[in-house]
This record gives sequence, C-alpha cells and structure tokens, in this order.
Amino acid sequence: METAKMPYWGFVKDPIYGYIRLTEVEKSIIDTLAVQRLRRIRQLAGAEYVYPAANHTRFEHVLGAMYLAGVVADNLPINLSAEEKQKIRLAALLHDVGHAPFSHLFEPMLLKFLHRSHEDMSSWIIADSDLTDVISAQGYDPKDLSSLAVGKPGSSDKRFLGQIISSSFDVDKMDFVVRDSYHTGAGYGFVDVFRLIYTMDILDGNLAVDITALPALESLILARFESFRAIYFHRACRAVQMMLLRALELAKDDLQILGIENPDQYLEWDDFSVWSKLVQNARSTKILRDLSQRKLLKCAYEKTFFVRDELVSSVFTNENVRAQLEEEIARKSGVPVEDIGIDVPSLPSVPYHNAFAIGPIDIPVFSKSRSGAMIPEKITELSKVVDVLQVFMNIIRVYTSEKYRERVGDAATKVLGEAPLSNTLSY
Amino acid sequence: METAKMPYWGFVKDPIYGYIRLTEVEKSIIDTLAVQRLRRIRQLAGAEYVYPAANHTRFEHVLGAMYLAGVVADNLPINLSAEEKQKIRLAALLHDVGHAPFSHLFEPMLLKFLHRSHEDMSSWIIADSDLTDVISAQGYDPKDLSSLAVGKPGSSDKRFLGQIISSSFDVDKMDFVVRDSYHTGAGYGFVDVFRLIYTMDILDGNLAVDITALPALESLILARFESFRAIYFHRACRAVQMMLLRALELAKDDLQILGIENPDQYLEWDDFSVWSKLVQNARSTKILRDLSQRKLLKCAYEKTFFVRDELVSSVFTNENVRAQLEEEIARKSGVPVEDIGIDVPSLPSVPYHNAFAIGPIDIPVFSKSRSGAMIPEKITELSKVVDVLQVFMNIIRVYTSEKYRERVGDAATKVLGEAPLSNTLSY
Amino acid sequence: METAKMPYWGFVKDPIYGYIRLTEVEKSIIDTLAVQRLRRIRQLAGAEYVYPAANHTRFEHVLGAMYLAGVVADNLPINLSAEEKQKIRLAALLHDVGHAPFSHLFEPMLLKFLHRSHEDMSSWIIADSDLTDVISAQGYDPKDLSSLAVGKPGSSDKRFLGQIISSSFDVDKMDFVVRDSYHTGAGYGFVDVFRLIYTMDILDGNLAVDITALPALESLILARFESFRAIYFHRACRAVQMMLLRALELAKDDLQILGIENPDQYLEWDDFSVWSKLVQNARSTKILRDLSQRKLLKCAYEKTFFVRDELVSSVFTNENVRAQLEEEIARKSGVPVEDIGIDVPSLPSVPYHNAFAIGPIDIPVFSKSRSGAMIPEKITELSKVVDVLQVFMNIIRVYTSEKYRERVGDAATKVLGEAPLSNTLSY
Amino acid sequence: METAKMPYWGFVKDPIYGYIRLTEVEKSIIDTLAVQRLRRIRQLAGAEYVYPAANHTRFEHVLGAMYLAGVVADNLPINLSAEEKQKIRLAALLHDVGHAPFSHLFEPMLLKFLHRSHEDMSSWIIADSDLTDVISAQGYDPKDLSSLAVGKPGSSDKRFLGQIISSSFDVDKMDFVVRDSYHTGAGYGFVDVFRLIYTMDILDGNLAVDITALPALESLILARFESFRAIYFHRACRAVQMMLLRALELAKDDLQILGIENPDQYLEWDDFSVWSKLVQNARSTKILRDLSQRKLLKCAYEKTFFVRDELVSSVFTNENVRAQLEEEIARKSGVPVEDIGIDVPSLPSVPYHNAFAIGPIDIPVFSKSRSGAMIPEKITELSKVVDVLQVFMNIIRVYTSEKYRERVGDAATKVLGEAPLSNTLSY
Repeated sequence: METAKMPYWGFVKDPIYGYIRLTEVEKSIIDTLAVQRLRRIRQLAGAEYVYPAANHTRFEHVLGAMYLAGVVADNLPINLSAEEKQKIRLAALLHDVGHAPFSHLFEPMLLKFLHRSHEDMSSWIIADSDLTDVISAQGYDPKDLSSLAVGKPGSSDKRFLGQIISSSFDVDKMDFVVRDSYHTGAGYGFVDVFRLIYTMDILDGNLAVDITALPALESLILARFESFRAIYFHRACRAVQMMLLRALELAKDDLQILGIENPDQYLEWDDFSVWSKLVQNARSTKILRDLSQRKLLKCAYEKTFFVRDELVSSVFTNENVRAQLEEEIARKSGVPVEDIGIDVPSLPSVPYHNAFAIGPIDIPVFSKSRSGAMIPEKITELSKVVDVLQVFMNIIRVYTSEKYRERVGDAATKVLGEAPLSNTLSY
Repeated sequence: METAKMPYWGFVKDPIYGYIRLTEVEKSIIDTLAVQRLRRIRQLAGAEYVYPAANHTRFEHVLGAMYLAGVVADNLPINLSAEEKQKIRLAALLHDVGHAPFSHLFEPMLLKFLHRSHEDMSSWIIADSDLTDVISAQGYDPKDLSSLAVGKPGSSDKRFLGQIISSSFDVDKMDFVVRDSYHTGAGYGFVDVFRLIYTMDILDGNLAVDITALPALESLILARFESFRAIYFHRACRAVQMMLLRALELAKDDLQILGIENPDQYLEWDDFSVWSKLVQNARSTKILRDLSQRKLLKCAYEKTFFVRDELVSSVFTNENVRAQLEEEIARKSGVPVEDIGIDVPSLPSVPYHNAFAIGPIDIPVFSKSRSGAMIPEKITELSKVVDVLQVFMNIIRVYTSEKYRERVGDAATKVLGEAPLSNTLSY
Repeated sequence: METAKMPYWGFVKDPIYGYIRLTEVEKSIIDTLAVQRLRRIRQLAGAEYVYPAANHTRFEHVLGAMYLAGVVADNLPINLSAEEKQKIRLAALLHDVGHAPFSHLFEPMLLKFLHRSHEDMSSWIIADSDLTDVISAQGYDPKDLSSLAVGKPGSSDKRFLGQIISSSFDVDKMDFVVRDSYHTGAGYGFVDVFRLIYTMDILDGNLAVDITALPALESLILARFESFRAIYFHRACRAVQMMLLRALELAKDDLQILGIENPDQYLEWDDFSVWSKLVQNARSTKILRDLSQRKLLKCAYEKTFFVRDELVSSVFTNENVRAQLEEEIARKSGVPVEDIGIDVPSLPSVPYHNAFAIGPIDIPVFSKSRSGAMIPEKITELSKVVDVLQVFMNIIRVYTSEKYRERVGDAATKVLGEAPLSNTLSY
Repeated sequence: METAKMPYWGFVKDPIYGYIRLTEVEKSIIDTLAVQRLRRIRQLAGAEYVYPAANHTRFEHVLGAMYLAGVVADNLPINLSAEEKQKIRLAALLHDVGHAPFSHLFEPMLLKFLHRSHEDMSSWIIADSDLTDVISAQGYDPKDLSSLAVGKPGSSDKRFLGQIISSSFDVDKMDFVVRDSYHTGAGYGFVDVFRLIYTMDILDGNLAVDITALPALESLILARFESFRAIYFHRACRAVQMMLLRALELAKDDLQILGIENPDQYLEWDDFSVWSKLVQNARSTKILRDLSQRKLLKCAYEKTFFVRDELVSSVFTNENVRAQLEEEIARKSGVPVEDIGIDVPSLPSVPYHNAFAIGPIDIPVFSKSRSGAMIPEKITELSKVVDVLQVFMNIIRVYTSEKYRERVGDAATKVLGEAPLSNTLSY
C-alpha cells in the first residue's frame, strides 16, 4: 500500500491491488455525480459478448489508476510534495470522467457531431459540473486538474507528471491491461507493473525506465498488443460495437443525443440510459432485439496487416474509403449496401505522447553507470520486441448478416484479396 | 474440462474455470432473450457500492453453474446417460432465469403483489417464453426442465439430480461463493470445490459427500457464512438495497411493475431498464439522485444475533414487527417515522432442501469401510464447525439519514438494547 | 509495500507479497550462515510426499514473516520509532533460526536428549554464532533480539511486540497459513491477513483485533485448522515423519547428533546433510531406501477426537501410554511390536501465549464506541466459530507395514474402539 | 481434468492444475527410485539465491508435463488409443529422469568426461535401472519409451508424438514456463497454454497450431525469453552456478563423480548428496562456505547481444575462446587468472526440433478454410514477434571477487568494449 501523507478517510477493497487507501479529498471527489456515473459505463463495451465476465466498469478502473499514480509518485527518487502527490492521484482518478456510454464506441459521434473528443469532454466536465465546486472547495484548481487529467501538466518543467497519466507506460495502460485480463479471463495481462514503477526515474524531465525493467516493459507492450487482438478487436466484440453504433446513428435525432448544451446533460448518458432508450426507440429497436438474442453480424472477410507508417494506416480508416469499398462489394455480390459493413479497427501499438523533446515512439530508458549516473539508451536498439511492435496494426473486416455471408465473402475476396479466415468457434 | 458426449459447438472463456465447452443445444438456449437478459442483471445488487469491482452478472454465474453441474455429473460413480448429463447442465443454466432486476432485492415485491417467488417466475418463463420453443425444438421437455431448474426432479428415485441444483453444496452455491469472492476481491471464497465434487456419491438416493472432503465442505460453509457478513449483509450494501426498494415502492404504480400478464413483459425488466425508469420517475428520482452521489442511508444501530430456531428468526423478519419497532423509535427520537428504516437480513446458514427422507439441515456424509461400502455418518458429530454454523444469523439494523443518526441511535438503543457499533471506515 | 525508514539495500521478490524491501541491516543479517542455512530446511518435512510442490523452505518463510511484521508495525495506530520497527522485523526474521532439520520432526529428540526446544536453540544461536557479531556490529543487542525472536519482549510494558511474533494471529501463522497453501496447492490458506493487520490496535498493552475484522480472524483460524488436517497431520505425511524419526533414532549414536557442544556444530545439520548421512548409515539405510521408493508405513487404524482440556489431550501424547498401547496391539495381533507405531499428532487449535493479564485462549478483540474509544469484547461470545475451534484436535493412528495392515487394524479396533477409515485414495 | 480411460489409482494435488489423476501404471512408475529421486533435484539450481521461493523440483515438473501431455492427447482431433495416450503421458513423466544434480549445471561435466547428455542418461536409466522392470511389468517397452521420452517416436509416421515431448511448444516448455513463474514469483509465465492445446492439430504429420492461437503462442515464446533473462540467466543466479561448477571441478577426483559404471551409481547423485560431499571435501569447502553466506562472485562486466546465426553464437560459448579472453583480462588488470571467470549463457530462443520435413525454426501453423480444410501458413510472416525472437541471445559476463571488481571491469571494457552495467540492486 502506498503512503498517503494526506489525512485519509478509509479503505476500499480492489481485487487487483487489495486495500486502496482514500484521502478525505479523494472521497469527496469520488462521491460526485460525474465520478459515480462511471459505475454505469462498462470498461469494454461489447467484450462481454465474447468474455461473459467482462462487466467491469470505468469506476473501478479509475480507482486503480489513482492507486498506481500514488505508487509511482511515492517511489520516484525525487521530492514531490504531499500536494503534488495528491494532485497526480486526482488527475488519474479523473482521467476518464468524460467517457461516453459504451466507452470508446460513442466517440466517433462525439467527434463528428459535437467536434469534441472524450478528453475534451473530461476538461469540460471538470470545469463545469458538480465536480468543479467540490474540487475548488478542497483547495485544488479545476483548470489545472483538467489539464493534468488528460496528460498535460500546467508548467513545462514537470512534464513527467503528465506522462504518469498519459504515455506508453502510464497508469491508465498499466491498470487496464491487468484489469481487463483479470475480469475477462483472457490471460494476457499478468504484467509485473511494480517492477516498472520501482525503477522509474526522471531523465531530462521525462518519465523514464531503467533498462533492468526492460522485461517488464516488453511484457506490458506485448500484453497490450495481444489484448487488442484477443479482446478489443475480437471479431464478435467489434460486431456488437458496429450494431450499437448503427442503432445510435438511426436513433440519434429522436434521442437528441447531439443537442447537449452543458456537461450535466451529457452526464445523464450512460450505458443504462442509452441502452434503454435504444430499446424503446422505433428505429433502433430491431437491432437491440438482435443484440438481446446475440444475433450478431457475421464476419465474411478478414485480413490483418501491420504497417509502420501512420499515413498508410489512416487511409484504411478513412470513412470515405470504407464507403467506396462497401459500394464495390455490394455491386459485386448483389447484396444491398446497407447490409454490408467494413470495419477497420486500428491501433498504434506503442503510443507515446507529451514528450516535447523526443520523437513520438521513443520510450526514454536509461542504464546506470557504476557511479550511479543515468545514461540514456535507445530502446529500439535494446529491445527488438519493442521495435517490432512499433507498428500500426490494422484489421480489415467485412461484416454482413448470416444469410449473405458467403456471397459477401466471395465479393470481398475479389475486391480486397485472398485472406485466411479461421473458423474455429469460440463464443 | 468436463467431457461432453453431446456434439459441441465451441468454447467460452471464464476467469474462474478457464475454457467452458458448450454443446449445440446449450448454445441455442443461451442465445434466447430469457438467458441473454441475465447479462443485464448484476449478481450482487448494491455490493458494488462497497466493492467497486462487483459488477458481475447472473449470466456468467449460470454458465459457471452449468459447468460445475457437468463436472459433478461426469464424476459421480454411477452411470448417467448423455441425455441426463445434458439435462442437468441445462437445469443449472436455467436455474436463475426468473431473477428479478437487482437480483434478490425485487423479490419481496414479487411475493407481496404477484404472489410469486423468483423460482415461480423461472418455471413460468421456461414454460411460456421464447425459451419454451427452443427447448422443445432441441428435444427436451420444458415442464421437466422447469422443475429440475428449481431443484425438483421429475421422478422421485433420482432426487440427487435436484440436489445438484439445490442443496447445501449445490452448484449454485459452489459457483457464487467462488465467483463473488473473485470479482469483489473480498477474499472469503477460495474453496476447493473440486475436492467436494470428486468425492461425491449417492447415498440412499441423496447426493452425499465423503468425509475425506470434510475440510472442503467446512470451508465452503464458512466461506458462504463470511460472504454473507462481509458482502451481502454489509451495512452500506443493505443501505443501497433499502433505498432502491423504497424507490421501487414509490414508483410502482407509475411503472406498472405489478401489472405483468406474461413472461415477455417480465423479461423487459432488467437492471438497466428499471434503473432508467426510476431516474425519470418524479416520485423516485430524489432517491436515485442520492444513490448517484453515494449519499446513503446511515446505520444508527446494529445488533447481530444467532439463533438455531427458524421460528425465532422469522419473528424479527416479520414486516409488522418491524413497523411497530420503527414507530416506537420514531416516538422516542422525535424523528419522522418515514426517515427510519429497520433492516433485518436473515440467513439460514446451512440450508438443506429437497431431501425427502432426511431432516432439513443434515448434509448426507459417509465414510467407507475397508471393503469400499459406504457407511452413513452424522455430520454434526463429525464437524463442530458445521454444527455451530447451523444457525440463523440475524442482524437488526436501524437506518436513518445522516442528520438524525445520533438521535435515532440513542432511541434504538433504548428500544432494542445496547450494541457495539464499530465505526472503522471502509467504503 | 511497507515504508522502511531505515536506509534500504534493495528488493527481493516473493510470490506472495511481491517486492520485499530490505534494509542494509537486514541484508547483513540475512547473509549469515545461520539464516542462509534455512534455505536447506524445508518448511513442511514429509508434506511433499502428499503435495509434490511443497518444497518451500524456512528461508522464504522468515522473509515473509519479516515483511508482515513491518506491515503490522507501520500500521499500528501508535508511534513506534524506526529502531523499534527494525527490531520487530529482525525478530521475525530470526524467529525460526533454531529450527532443526526436517522442521518440527527433529524436535522431540532435541527435547529428549539435549533438553532444548527449537526456541532454546534460536536463543543459543543468536547469542553465540556468526549472527552474534553481525547483530552487534549493526548496533542491536543480541540478547534482546533473541528474546523478542521467541515472542518475549525485554520490557513488560511492550508485550504487544512479543505478540506480533508469537500469538494466535502472529506474523508467523499469518505467513505460513498463506504460504503453505500457495506451495502445496491445498487451498485452505487464502486469508485476508491485511484486513486483520489494518485493524489491529493495542488494548491494555496487548495486540488486539477490531471486531470488524472478525471474518478475517475466523478465516485465519479455520484455515490453520484445516491445514493441520489436510497437510500437517495428513496420514501419509505423518508416515514419512515417523519413518524419518525411526531412522534418526537408529542412527543417532553413529551420527553423534547428540554430542553438539556449540551452535556452529548444530548449524551443520540441515535437510541435505542429515538425509545424506542417514542414506549412508548402515542402521538407517533400509528406511531411507523405502522412503526413496515411497514405500510408506500404512495406517491400519485412525480415530480423530477433539477435547477442550489440554490435560486429556496430553495423556494421549504421553510416550509411555503409547508404548503400552503398542504392546497390547502387538499381543492381540501377533505382529512384532517393532512393526507397530502409534502416532498421536496433537494441536491446540487456537493457541494464545505471552499475554500476562489474560487467559490462555482469549484473543483480545474490541469494538469502538461512537467516540472512537475501544470497548473490550469477548471473542468466544462474538464468534461461535472461534469458540468451537478452541479445542485440542487429536488423531490416534496405528501404523504398520503393508503386510500386517489387516491384522493390526483388527487388533487396534479391539484395543481402541471402532472408527471409520475412509480409503479414498489420494497421493 | 483429462479423461483417463485407463484404470486409475487416485489423485495428486498440484498448485498449477489442481487435481491430477494417476493411473495404476503411472503410480507404479512414479514410485521407483529413478523418478522419486527427482524430488531431490531442484528445477532451477541457483535461482533460489535471487528468488527465495524457487525451491521447486523436477518431480513436480514431470507430473505437470505428464498432465499436459494427457490433455494434448485427449484434445487432438484424431483417434489415439488408450495405450498411445498412456504412452505419451509416461514419456512426459520420464523425460527428465536423467537429469544431473543442480539441473543443467552438471551437464557440461557429463558431456566432457562421460560424453553423455542428460538425454543420453535418461535413455540409459530407462533401459537399465529399477525403472526398466517396472515398465516391462506394466506391459510397455522400455526401449520404445526411452526414445519417446527424449522426443524421438519409434515409428516415423507419428512424429507428432515426439513433438508433444520436444518442440517449441512442447509440454516441457509449457509446464516449466508456467511453473517457474509460479514458484519464483517472477511474473512472466502466465500463459494461456490451454488455448494452444485446444487448437492443436496434425499438419503433414507434425504437431501444428491454429493461427487463432497465435496470441497464446507469442505469449509463450516471449514468456520463455523473459524467463531466461530474468531467472535462468540472472547475474546472481549464474554466479551461484559458476561457483558450484568450480567446486565440482575441484572435487571431482575425490568424489569419483566420473567413475560411474551403471545408472544405479548415477542415481545416487542428487542435490542433497552432492552438496553434502562438496561441503565436506577439503578442495571445495571454501566455495561452499562462501555460498552458505551468499558471498557470491561479482559481475564486473556485462554485455548482451542477439544474433540470428547459431555459428556466431557458438564462437562465444567456445571454452577455448573464453580461456583466451580470461588470460587477456588477467594480464591487463593484474588480477590472477583464477579469480576471473567469463560466463556466456546462450539460448536459441525459439528452438524447434524433431520435425523431419521442415526447417529448424519453423513452427507449423495453419489457418482453416471455410470448408474446414487446414491451410499451412508461415509463422514468421504472420508473427513479427516470433520472427524477431528467433535469435540466439548471448550474454557475456566477466565475474571476479568483490575486491577486484573495478580493476577487472576496466580491463574487460578494454578487451570486450563499452557496455552499460545497471547497478540497481536486487537480491
């Protein structure tokens, strides 16, 4: 357990870390509408259709991220004040507060119609909701916290604080890789995150990792990669998400989802309320009924490819390109275009942000000389595993309904090329 | 993994047991509205307010119970046909299909207004919903299955089949004790259920346990007992349930919850839909807003007692007795009676049902002679732990709002006697 | 991880607690002959014949006990100095340093011929071996530490320090219950020891437990009880121990085991050296050859009984009584008396020592008033589970070789009464 | 649990897989001197100096490998007879029976002086020890089994049977990666081996993996790789092994280790007997005394490099090359050459043997067409992770005693080039 130097309120029990100590400040912020709402937002929308136990929520995840942020702050070999430690824990606690229902699923609509990412929503909520007053009353600056919560520290000299929240080995990833594996049972996330944390240091102002923790870092990056393949990008999981997205698009005008004028309206949306509305809405109810009987879209074609260049990757994720390909497959198969859906989940497998002086994918690592001085090292030279995972993984899939599966599969093969499609069944 | 002799469809991954094999029959029944609905009914309504990770659902529980039922059937040292094994797995799969939203919480209302238990609802649903046709189409008798699913085998000579589903050491309890501990992190449910299962046999027609598995049986019973205290009967967990129950009572006429005429209407109720309706309903919205900020009722008084006699226990759980005591505390404290709530969760700690020839709390155990013959033993003589846990645990608590806590506590002490109230804080 | 305020040397990884931080002082004491020798003393001599994975040693156990002692010291709501915390960690580290080879097995011989218990050996070693100088050089008093290491604090006003090392819920028991379960896989030791530790306080000078941690305490006591039955007192495990003990008795004069004059000679004995000597010794080699092929003594008779009175229990463990019963069974069966062995493992299931003002079996527990004051409670009133487990568990077994099994079994039944003997096979 | 169609004897409990069912045949073979001896051979000699809990033995490992072999045999989609299944389980049980004391440590001496590998020893023992008669008595052919136990099936058409025992994803590796991680706590071995096993099939006579299990395969290969770095090749672990090896070389003439004439003599060597002899031998006792106080050789220089070519790798592991480099460092540092030791642990990270038709490092993988036909795929094209891990990892380390550390470090840098040496301390 970390050492909290702030007056603490009590404990909460977590299946991953055991007892998590809460300060009075944290308790008051946790008990706001904005944070409690995360109890009704599942961490992995759709994954429960593949892994029945994957019902965990953003709420337990943010508690876990807060805990890890405290452990990092307590173990960094520099002097952080009790206030700084409290602030970094709060930032981790609030980093997901802007999440839309069904986690990432809703986000394309936020971007398309409201021109806001979930991080923008977080900032908005921290600055203008019941959270705002509580944060101020506790003596913290909501503006400041809303920046740090999305990985942007206020002052440039402490950018490592932002990297604790948002980088390739931030507390968000360390928690979700371990937690998603625990609740799904998928088995890719047993990572020794404490090895990583106990060797962290500050190198040129950036959060950096001792090369003695390289095996733990490689495990984390591979675990994240495999989790994407086995959980987040799972064929059936993506089918559920496509169906939910279609339902949302059909019902969006009736539901006035896009007319929100303030954070309070946004906070009324959660998995419970949106699901219930979609069930009742005449336009979306058929899709919801299919979901309620696990009649999912079927994958007629699948091809995975890995590229190192973001540009190449982004072509395939372009909406217009997808629409054009759908048209072509429709024409070739004689299946109505509305029954064909191309899905291209894409992932930069080793993201690294918020490091001003360094390239986008270089994780700062160091060795130590006999005198104890830190010597910067190049991770891609030290670790071929990290190097090779620095790719954008793309999967192109063509979905359709059961009855059209074969025809669409054949047409997609003509349009997109041969691809193996293993059909070993798993739920 | 168990041996399924029926044609199987594929696997599903569970965090407790690993890969669970599904037959084609099971897959078709799992993909009905009735079973899929269990995805939206949490296993432990209210417990997530104490254990943030406790968001698991009845859906994963019934898959687990089905798995264990198969392991029992495969390991019993008698010849069961493939059909019997399939039937017992299906019965376990369907045993919770009648559950109301928020699990057990809704049940008093079902009983009071509809005069049906959740087991009655299960039978009704199996006999008259989309399930019914699917079961028939697969060649099984819905009537038969609906009996077995609530622990009542069709023919008297195989009562042990019913006991696999419903007894002191049934697959329901074995699964939930382990699973609830896993997802809460509470830590009481690591029970070696396979030790129990691998030594089971049939004694005089009843499912019985070899005394060599006594330590595992004692662990199961203690784990169930501690789980009740630490999870299901937790002070804050019960506060959430009382609040939800009040909200339901306030909104029941508007929601027409009690006007259901067929199983299909009942199946529309789940945690998502009922929560959303309670949020929108003018009568219940205040309580829901309190819940959404974790402003819970406070426990002003608490006393635990253990009795061996069901009669004594039932006095305290009598609704009229409770009402009378609330009146008296209101009078003595000057607090309005509607701000006072007495809660008396009650538990027969070692339930045993469905065994015609034996008493209600005797678990059949046996030793084996050198020749291999089973010799019946008396469990209460062999195990003082089981004996002492054969009590009804009752907790009397008086809840009120924060501001009345002290006054109500004092009045309750006068009415109900002195009691320790430990106030170490936990979430 | 606990907060060490002493200069620390580094980490060591433990499968139970993760990273254990070591101070420079601890490192220097760990790297002595006396402590390193514990690497060659298995925690559970004989248990590996039942649980093949049970090869863990006293060495990892004392590191674990040291870790827990630090967590207790860090979390007690009183001010302990850095030196006191270091001392209590060292006491836990050294508490098993006097252990004989094959753990407890050797101990009756120590008592019989050297008139010393393993605790006396610990004191002797701490006061007169390579340890002594290292302890002094680090600024600690060997005498002082040698008392505390066996649960006897130097000054009477801090007796709770001794109870951290030796009581019903000491760090020794908390560690071994969890660790033995982990390495055996027996499955009885998943106890939430941190719940216990985080609520500990000092009541009238004694280490005491908050009643909110009662479920964790009950779990610990039951886990210890079941571990005795399923591991330490397992029929085959005791058979191995009886065989080793016989081998030792046969070879003792040749091996000059009883001629030790100083701790250094004693420290040369470990599992490796004693096993090797017994293999080579002409008198004991046959028994060792049997062990090496897992030809174990067979249990011909077994009876378990529980008594509340230590006196009754001690009658059955009396060596002369056993010898007399062996004679009688030999006479009745016609089997040579040297082929008959009576084993009576005995256990006070809830030991409590070193508390001057209180009875032998009362664990101090308290509730808290609304004002925060500790109110002493009586554990046997609050917990029927603890009450019922406050017994001495005795098992009488009669062992013989395979060929005499039936004859000895029959004779033992005549002498000692009927008893069930379940013969379900497990390794 | 797997289905054993042979008459079974009972269960044994394993912490990794739970209950392992043993047949009568297996029980009789397990209870031989040759197999029971594995109880006294630790799985990881030296690793316990870094991971105190790493005391597990070859005995539990071979039980685990036997269990997994049974699961593979039960799940392969072909018809194997009960005898074939039994044979493959026995082969896994016996695959390590020839292991020398301190596991792999002794092996260079076996090769150098006896010109036998541990696999040769296994064959010798199976063909000519107490095992031989037991195997024959049970109706199996010792010759046959001794081939299969080292991965060489008797008849060429079933080479996949050999690959179950010896290949890149054999039951040996699957078990040790998981088990070593469990007992060390190192945290790299949580691999979903059942995913791999449940998708295995036979492709052109070879054991092959469905590409849907690629994530599990990648995890296994990375876990093995990280385990080498973090456990087997750990700096302190190798120091212990070097010291033990030196002690053996010094004492070898006195101990007559190299004069064995039959398997029975060899079987007398185990960790217990060899350690005890080295302690008593005048030439080796000083090194043993250092080990007994954890005074280890210190690493003065370390450089890791990865090559794809076995030839390059083998240069560095050549004994003469090492001797020459040691001379040069001695000259440059002025330190006696006997106080300098170069260690070059080397590992082909993705070994693949015993597949006649295919290259040394190609793991057979397949996809499935819509019709269910297996389509061979190329793993290095599908998995960049496997591709990049197909290297030989080499670490060059120069060890010396504490006092010479700096001088030797400087000289080694001149001879071998600059290298980072992180000195974060861990036990």
